[in-house]
Amino acid sequence: MTDTAVVACCQLAPSLGDPPANRDLAAEAVAHAAASGANVIVLPELMSSGYVFESRAEAQVNAEPPDGDTITLWCRLSAGHDATIIGGFCEQAADSEHKGPYNSAAVIDRGELRAVYRKAHLWDAERLWFIPGDAAPPLVQTEFGLLSVMICYDIEFPEWVRLPALSGAQLLCAPVNWPAAPRPAGERPAEVTRLQADAGVNRMFMAACDRTGTERGVDWAAASAIADPDGYLLAEAEAGPQAQTIIAECRLTEARDKRVSQHSDVHADRRPELYGPVARAGQTS
Amino acid sequence: MTDTAVVACCQLAPSLGDPPANRDLAAEAVAHAAASGANVIVLPELMSSGYVFESRAEAQVNAEPPDGDTITLWCRLSAGHDATIIGGFCEQAADSEHKGPYNSAAVIDRGELRAVYRKAHLWDAERLWFIPGDAAPPLVQTEFGLLSVMICYDIEFPEWVRLPALSGAQLLCAPVNWPAAPRPAGERPAEVTRLQADAGVNRMFMAACDRTGTERGVDWAAASAIADPDGYLLAEAEAGPQAQTIIAECRLTEARDKRVSQHSDVHADRRPELYGPVARAGQTS
Repeated sequence: MTDTAVVACCQLAPSLGDPPANRDLAAEAVAHAAASGANVIVLPELMSSGYVFESRAEAQVNAEPPDGDTITLWCRLSAGHDATIIGGFCEQAADSEHKGPYNSAAVIDRGELRAVYRKAHLWDAERLWFIPGDAAPPLVQTEFGLLSVMICYDIEFPEWVRLPALSGAQLLCAPVNWPAAPRPAGERPAEVTRLQADAGVNRMFMAACDRTGTERGVDWAAASAIADPDGYLLAEAEAGPQAQTIIAECRLTEARDKRVSQHSDVHADRRPELYGPVARAGQTS
Repeated sequence: MTDTAVVACCQLAPSLGDPPANRDLAAEAVAHAAASGANVIVLPELMSSGYVFESRAEAQVNAEPPDGDTITLWCRLSAGHDATIIGGFCEQAADSEHKGPYNSAAVIDRGELRAVYRKAHLWDAERLWFIPGDAAPPLVQTEFGLLSVMICYDIEFPEWVRLPALSGAQLLCAPVNWPAAPRPAGERPAEVTRLQADAGVNRMFMAACDRTGTERGVDWAAASAIADPDGYLLAEAEAGPQAQTIIAECRLTEARDKRVSQHSDVHADRRPELYGPVARAGQTS
């Protein structure tokens, strides 16, 4: 075990419907990040396929199984560069019961596919193309510490973030495709403040890898960010549509200590007996 | 019913152990805020008593019942200025079973005490002086919409924020005493990003009224802020230790619509069947 992981988010512009081109793009970015010393490399949501589908059929055509060409390549890259890779891909459903693909993320460590997570909170029209996942975010033990993963809109549900956090995740990686939206001048996208809050209230590291590159008229926030357990940013993307990689050293052992003052501990201070069910919300006066 | 509330946070410097002086301070600030058009006026945590106690006995001496001089005055101010007042006070326990005071907040509307909330998540040494509350944040219907209240550290527990939010709170007011802490240059305190996240993931307004004024060597973030349902700030305190009032117009009806895109709704998109108990967290690989 080592104390510090160098975490990279490769903010790329995948090509819609061109998995071979996206494999090349990822290979180049992973090689570059690894050459910069990265141990943990995060790729965007739906890196394998692009995002702006117009039908379930189109998503299906671009889907791949977890032993398909994309994940096979990422495993090879992980082994070759001695790096953990977390990246989003359009996952073909293996069973005939489910007709559509999943919006998934793979966690690959030492060349081995360790976990596939399926996005549970589908954003907007995604629910028309994808099957929602039903399983909690996986926890993957690596030489750097305990990693977990979720995807984009998932991190805006603090109850979901709590699951891996309470199970000891030290670094939560999130492949995202944050659509561009208006915001006040000089402000970071609201998604970034939510990332900071998720990290801070759980005292863990978080790394969100956004994408760039206009796709069918849709633009992106292009706001990749890495947050520390205090909820401040260690690295964030520079403004602009260019592809770029952000990198931060994360002392993951810090995330094992949930104390924030002499008597306070952000996890021990929870009072779950008061939190549910919803029926317990205060009476109206 | 009216669409827009003018919300004010009066960031004051209460005097430790001097409730009469703190009543005068609040009276002046409420009059000033009301004269500026405020309909909803938020005061800091423990406005009645100051914060930095050194014993339970000292807190007890400074506690008042909900029909004591402080709340009686605030009711008169509410009636006289036609304003809703939400403020923190050191509450004497009415029953002999509980030996210590509560860290409470009063919600006063049209001159009437509508609800008393007792802080459920006690910060640091507070647990040595105060009894924790066990009741969910109350919901108070006003002419402007449905208001709720919690106190300081409470808002760093997103499950707690969910309770009033899911019950329809349009504005969540938080008397706070955020202790000053180091932060990266140019950054807002992490507490403010958590406020923004709470507001955004629930699409409701939030108003945190911080304090100022060094007390027994303790300084404060002095970072009062009002957030909108997108998670951006409508108003925030200027840097510095001076007392000040921040004000923002809040169209509270906006908080009744939880949609964020054609198909997405931040509350309807929750998947509570997946969130608990903790035992469901992902298996480790």
